[in-house]
Amino acid sequence: MTLACAIAAFAAAPLSGAETARAVARLSALDWLAVARAGVDEPVAQIVRRTALDDGGRAQATVFGTDIRLPAGVAALVNGTTSHALDYDDTHFAHIGHPSTVIFPAAFAAGEAAGATLAEVIDAALVGMEASVRVGVWLGRGHYQIGFHQTATSGAFGAALAAARLLGGDAAMMEAALGLTATRAAGLKAQFGTMGKPYNAGQAAAAGFDCARLACAGMTTDSAALDGPYGFGATHHGVADPTALDGLGERWLFEGVSHKFHACCHGLHAALEALASADIAGPEVARVAVATHPRWLSVCNHPAPETGLGAKFSYRTALALRLAGQDTAALATWSDALAVAPAVTALRDRIEVAGDDALGEMHARLTITRKDGGQIDAFHDLDAALPLADRAVRATAKARALIGQDLADEAAALLRGDAPVARFTALFNR
Amino acid sequence: MTLACAIAAFAAAPLSGAETARAVARLSALDWLAVARAGVDEPVAQIVRRTALDDGGRAQATVFGTDIRLPAGVAALVNGTTSHALDYDDTHFAHIGHPSTVIFPAAFAAGEAAGATLAEVIDAALVGMEASVRVGVWLGRGHYQIGFHQTATSGAFGAALAAARLLGGDAAMMEAALGLTATRAAGLKAQFGTMGKPYNAGQAAAAGFDCARLACAGMTTDSAALDGPYGFGATHHGVADPTALDGLGERWLFEGVSHKFHACCHGLHAALEALASADIAGPEVARVAVATHPRWLSVCNHPAPETGLGAKFSYRTALALRLAGQDTAALATWSDALAVAPAVTALRDRIEVAGDDALGEMHARLTITRKDGGQIDAFHDLDAALPLADRAVRATAKARALIGQDLADEAAALLRGDAPVARFTALFNR
Repeated sequence: MTLACAIAAFAAAPLSGAETARAVARLSALDWLAVARAGVDEPVAQIVRRTALDDGGRAQATVFGTDIRLPAGVAALVNGTTSHALDYDDTHFAHIGHPSTVIFPAAFAAGEAAGATLAEVIDAALVGMEASVRVGVWLGRGHYQIGFHQTATSGAFGAALAAARLLGGDAAMMEAALGLTATRAAGLKAQFGTMGKPYNAGQAAAAGFDCARLACAGMTTDSAALDGPYGFGATHHGVADPTALDGLGERWLFEGVSHKFHACCHGLHAALEALASADIAGPEVARVAVATHPRWLSVCNHPAPETGLGAKFSYRTALALRLAGQDTAALATWSDALAVAPAVTALRDRIEVAGDDALGEMHARLTITRKDGGQIDAFHDLDAALPLADRAVRATAKARALIGQDLADEAAALLRGDAPVARFTALFNR
Repeated sequence: MTLACAIAAFAAAPLSGAETARAVARLSALDWLAVARAGVDEPVAQIVRRTALDDGGRAQATVFGTDIRLPAGVAALVNGTTSHALDYDDTHFAHIGHPSTVIFPAAFAAGEAAGATLAEVIDAALVGMEASVRVGVWLGRGHYQIGFHQTATSGAFGAALAAARLLGGDAAMMEAALGLTATRAAGLKAQFGTMGKPYNAGQAAAAGFDCARLACAGMTTDSAALDGPYGFGATHHGVADPTALDGLGERWLFEGVSHKFHACCHGLHAALEALASADIAGPEVARVAVATHPRWLSVCNHPAPETGLGAKFSYRTALALRLAGQDTAALATWSDALAVAPAVTALRDRIEVAGDDALGEMHARLTITRKDGGQIDAFHDLDAALPLADRAVRATAKARALIGQDLADEAAALLRGDAPVARFTALFNR
């Protein structure tokens, strides 16, 4: 049996149970809505949206940033780009990819086109996101290390399944959708730091949607295009991890998705969480020693950035912002003005950063010396799953900060029920 | 200087001279028009066209098989798929790719959207096709061997340049278009023998067009996304041939493009050409010994196929069809009925095929024994360029056979002048 056949069987089956995974998916939907709305004015989102509006077409699916609805595949492209524009969406570290920003755009567009309910869209997206993580694990770390953007490559397969499920595809059509996606899935890490990164997410959403739709319209291909000797894995430096599908349909790797609760590089999050756990204010602090995995020192250890963007890649500034009482979840915190504000730089200069090989990539340890001479040790492991209730509180707080309390709460309420999906997509622009 | 920068400088420069290359490009345009029109009823073309028509959108560019014009990027997708549906379009063996079926769809769609002249579109397509061959040579044979469909991968870069030139892009925009295409270019040989192969051509045309358009609208990226350490070449098994750009702008590799003059597997063409040069009719033939490169024995040496499709991969049947007086350039020749017609199978049984390591991949040698005891030796090298005048005669004959004399001649006459491009695209469906 080909990999595509096995995954299609999972994706076409009715979904029952999986209540925790579904609850996490609903949180991700709320989070995705918030970061997408917050991203509509980013230049890359504006460019992609403007070209899509120039083309026009059937009013089928809602697009962030405009009241004009567009064909579903186009909506997937624009919404995928828009929701990754701030890089504030969720991440899964099993394969290192952003599931929501690729799979939700395809799922919501397909769901709206098909007149689905919100619960059906969440289920389809959950299936797609789980499949994307599994494909990503099957491809392995080597695929990512050499330069492929798992968000886009693995993500496209998940987008295809989510869309196919909502478009009424059966298992054979889903298998064909995966085979076609194997010849469309693309995206390079060489785009990091450019407009190409969010575009990768958008094009993956669109590629998955397009392939699902073509397969549902009768297009066929070779089922071995994913795992055959000349398939996507073999050509794209995949390791073909044989354990990748273990427990598929019973165990949900997707539950381990990590929501971003700070609007900065993910490499800083463990240190920010450790600081939060220490519960200490700036005026009391004499010195902070930060220990992190050495890999991050080349990524996010800018010692004295002079811009808000630079601050997002600076342990010292990020921790100083928090000690100064700023909310690191708020986009406005990462401004040029605050990055060099005397109250922040004074705190920044009390902070030292060093690598520690004994720590894991997702760990951070702080040693905080108080002005009164006392010492606090704080540690955080970002891989340790937050209890669901705590995640819900934080995801809700983040959404409220980004899009306002009324809208966030209305979205959360809708996600608890099973309204027509159009009631949720109406919130994209209200 | 990055590869993208160097190629963009070539593509943005005014085109002067290059008269032979331009003449070959005009022949390719005629050939492309004919094979695309002939492909409109193929199932893959129908599926892609139908979904595109469902979406609708701005009436901007002409689409084969429908009177309804569509947004240019969508037209590129449908027309690329349609023109490769019969696999009867031109091939360049320097990198092993089909240039016309990817670059013309992007160029005609962009040209029509921009209100260009036919000569401007031909020039832009020539620049794009030359660039696609150069990128393909830079990627090298390993890229193809491991499983990438050069038609689509290299082709997308050429499509981007052709479109950007017509959309008014400057060198910086073309460089950005190449950088973005690096993250979209895709296509696997695992699709060969399925609907996915023509779809590869269509999606490459659309990817190139989309990236050109976004770059012209202000999207930026990393110029090293093609040849940097994590760029398209490094991630896609490219060898980075340092000679790939030698003589760019002075010497036109595109001139070596090979038009298909038989509606069957390219592996049979050298033998069919050798037979034609022997100028002998079936009744006179006692025996034919065919010598070919051993690589083809696993590709197109079906000894006794029972279908027209099988005949396209059978030396014995193909040569027998020709000896029986059938026109191997005509699509109708490759029917199920003719493949097993007694007049054909009787001739087929006088033909033997063997591999010969001493021959090149593009060579065939026939030893024909006449009933009167005489012997004819015939040899053909498909790599040897046909004189331009001979190519023109044959390409015109092929086009007339596929779309009728009046239409073929009208198209050829237009290509000799510089009418608005819409006069030529009007022939897509007349």
